[in-house]
Amino acid sequence: MHDCASEILRICSKNSIIDDMTIVTPRRPSGFPEYTPAQQLAFNGLLAKIRTSYELAGFTPIETPALELADVLLAKGGGETEKEVFRFGKGSKDYVMHYDLTVPLARYVAERQNDLVFPFRRSQIQKVWRAERAQKGRAREFYQCDADVVGETDVAVDGELIALAATTMRNLAISKFTVRVNNRKVLTGMYEALGVADKSVELMRIIDKLEKIGEAEVRKLLSAEGLEKETVDTLVKTSNLHGAPDSVLADLRSLQLTNDTFVAGVEELERAVAAALATGAQEDEIIVDCAIARGLDYYTATVFETVLTDIPELGSVCSGGRFDNLAQYYTRRSLPGVGISIGLTRLFDGLWDAGHFDGARATTTQIIVWAGCDEAWSEAGKLTAELRAEGMASELSLSDTKLTKVLSRASKLGMKAVAIIGEDELAQSVVSVKILESGLQEQIPLAEVKDFLHKNAL
Amino acid sequence: MHDCASEILRICSKNSIIDDMTIVTPRRPSGFPEYTPAQQLAFNGLLAKIRTSYELAGFTPIETPALELADVLLAKGGGETEKEVFRFGKGSKDYVMHYDLTVPLARYVAERQNDLVFPFRRSQIQKVWRAERAQKGRAREFYQCDADVVGETDVAVDGELIALAATTMRNLAISKFTVRVNNRKVLTGMYEALGVADKSVELMRIIDKLEKIGEAEVRKLLSAEGLEKETVDTLVKTSNLHGAPDSVLADLRSLQLTNDTFVAGVEELERAVAAALATGAQEDEIIVDCAIARGLDYYTATVFETVLTDIPELGSVCSGGRFDNLAQYYTRRSLPGVGISIGLTRLFDGLWDAGHFDGARATTTQIIVWAGCDEAWSEAGKLTAELRAEGMASELSLSDTKLTKVLSRASKLGMKAVAIIGEDELAQSVVSVKILESGLQEQIPLAEVKDFLHKNAL
Repeated sequence: MHDCASEILRICSKNSIIDDMTIVTPRRPSGFPEYTPAQQLAFNGLLAKIRTSYELAGFTPIETPALELADVLLAKGGGETEKEVFRFGKGSKDYVMHYDLTVPLARYVAERQNDLVFPFRRSQIQKVWRAERAQKGRAREFYQCDADVVGETDVAVDGELIALAATTMRNLAISKFTVRVNNRKVLTGMYEALGVADKSVELMRIIDKLEKIGEAEVRKLLSAEGLEKETVDTLVKTSNLHGAPDSVLADLRSLQLTNDTFVAGVEELERAVAAALATGAQEDEIIVDCAIARGLDYYTATVFETVLTDIPELGSVCSGGRFDNLAQYYTRRSLPGVGISIGLTRLFDGLWDAGHFDGARATTTQIIVWAGCDEAWSEAGKLTAELRAEGMASELSLSDTKLTKVLSRASKLGMKAVAIIGEDELAQSVVSVKILESGLQEQIPLAEVKDFLHKNAL
Repeated sequence: MHDCASEILRICSKNSIIDDMTIVTPRRPSGFPEYTPAQQLAFNGLLAKIRTSYELAGFTPIETPALELADVLLAKGGGETEKEVFRFGKGSKDYVMHYDLTVPLARYVAERQNDLVFPFRRSQIQKVWRAERAQKGRAREFYQCDADVVGETDVAVDGELIALAATTMRNLAISKFTVRVNNRKVLTGMYEALGVADKSVELMRIIDKLEKIGEAEVRKLLSAEGLEKETVDTLVKTSNLHGAPDSVLADLRSLQLTNDTFVAGVEELERAVAAALATGAQEDEIIVDCAIARGLDYYTATVFETVLTDIPELGSVCSGGRFDNLAQYYTRRSLPGVGISIGLTRLFDGLWDAGHFDGARATTTQIIVWAGCDEAWSEAGKLTAELRAEGMASELSLSDTKLTKVLSRASKLGMKAVAIIGEDELAQSVVSVKILESGLQEQIPLAEVKDFLHKNAL
């Protein structure tokens, strides 16, 4: 009796531990997006198109570790970056999770400069992490899809990257879009000519807001910088130039500024746009926009961004530009770079919220094959293998599951067809195939199932 | 003079800062693999085959964040896990980088149990992080490729996963292989029958080492556990059983153990193997091996591992099994799971070291198109776009690069062909195409370049 009682006590207390104490509410840290199966499939579809676009254009994929050494990744020092990284010590190491793919590229290229063949064309599609305050459109973990050419000074390659932005966005087939191109030398040259070069960083930041806050507000901010009315007029007038490349380039030339930087900027802009149009960008996809400066301080010449016609409120979904010296903190060798970046997580979330993927399937499976009895396993397995060999994703249902449950599963997940091999079908050497959308159901010899599916569902 | 001197001083000191102080040696933390472009391409090739194999079999991809909340991910508590994670505080949060994909799956499923359709078939291919001592074959950052079914009790689905392991390894086409299958109930049932059930965890750990340390050493360890000679004999004899499923199953039955767990284990093993063979595994790919127990403590029934015939020293490259209750720390709902996992980084590194990828190309580019002058841009761009549309990865060389440099680049990176459009070609409306391997060079009308390349290089 004593033993029995203590055993009951033991079992009860064990159960109560499981019931009351060890269940932890499953949850995630905020700012870390995680998708449902349907969302993930739609996301992966975009990712695959970007990857293919980059790789077909000869941008070879690389990957860098999630963690880098803090003294290396933060070599540049200062600024907002240090505050916005996930950084931690472990053992004797000071780690940082990479917050973009550009600095790791610089480290990669500097570290391997003797082994790489330049110009080095690389693509890199990875998650990056930023310890920012989480808010809509600003996740702490998100995908960047980058493509860069390192070690080429000719701005013809800038045109190739503008064309890559255009073809990639076109391949995504989500919306019409405009790639807005500019060259920072046009801006800095103008500041020099106007005698306000010492304020160039601040001025670019203000001009960049033109579309966002409007001309009146920009004029106010420029005046607050101590600029004379005439200078403000010229800056605003020039910054408002945007449209077909030929026309804007003519307008810029008509300013007749003799400043060398300005003249070089206009020439580079012309060459980059011509190369872009020759190598895949279409006339109606590209404009020159003199207000574009891009916030990042490392761009030195070509800059561009891409706005979706249907969802302009997403801002730029594919941006890029040229930097004179990519890896200056890691090597004395001067390595110019030019690249593009797509912030895929923000783009996807915006598209999903806009209903772009309504009705997305929640499984890769197109056909579910149901074995009605153990004797049907072999035939069901054979059919499934054949369908998969044809590239039709197929799921097996071998277990003692009722057909109604299989049909309900297929319909809930958005499958295309159900193939049934029960006792009757086995006896007659056929398969009952039901197309879910049309409701069409037929009995078909095993060898003809593929063709039937191709014709009716896939 | 004063101004000029101070300016010179300023420039010198600025240069000396750049030259001597701000150059950081580019380097990575140890244990974090990073690949050359050639390695990355080979790695990505394997990854794509695994992804396709999983998705064709209806395992829908999901992804979970790199960072989880420590109290959630480490809900199970204790053991080696807590020591081996990258964990850090940031703001008010206690973060952990996920160290496998199984616990995040449990969290995902528990969190979304009302929205998911069960059985839930998911694949997940991501990096995981472990703060282990870095050593050969044990990276701190590595890829796991998992596929699991959650919410199906019938072990027929275990057979499907064994078949998935076999078809995936076959699709990788790297080596012949053997999937070794067992069921833990066979082992625990035997321990119960032999009266040593209280030591089952320790005994499984010893038996699991049979191949590694040999029979004599295993006998010593078993005796050291206080087992009698007769018991040791039976355990060793039974654990040595391995070979064609039918034969081993007959041997197990001939032991005539009446223990319920043992009998259930043998029946499950038979059903799982039969399902595996019916659904894609081939006879010569599967054995039953009674020594297989797998180290992980959460497996409760079916267990299996996969060894490459050509590189057995890599150990198991694809392992899996069934666990009774996947998400027990997150929900009271009982959710059985069965899955497989490929440790891709270790597998790839082993293959690379074994010379499996010797001669791997270092670029996605197959054809480089060279524009010999600016007037050729448009034709070069058109040709490149056409080739890409055909799925032939193509790189443009627009800039004023010498042809010899382009040819050298193409050859160093392992491209297949160079298409040249210079002034002569433009004048004659042809393209000079050079096939690198054969040295064949011909002038071909633009419209026929694709066919020529298909015939001679791709």
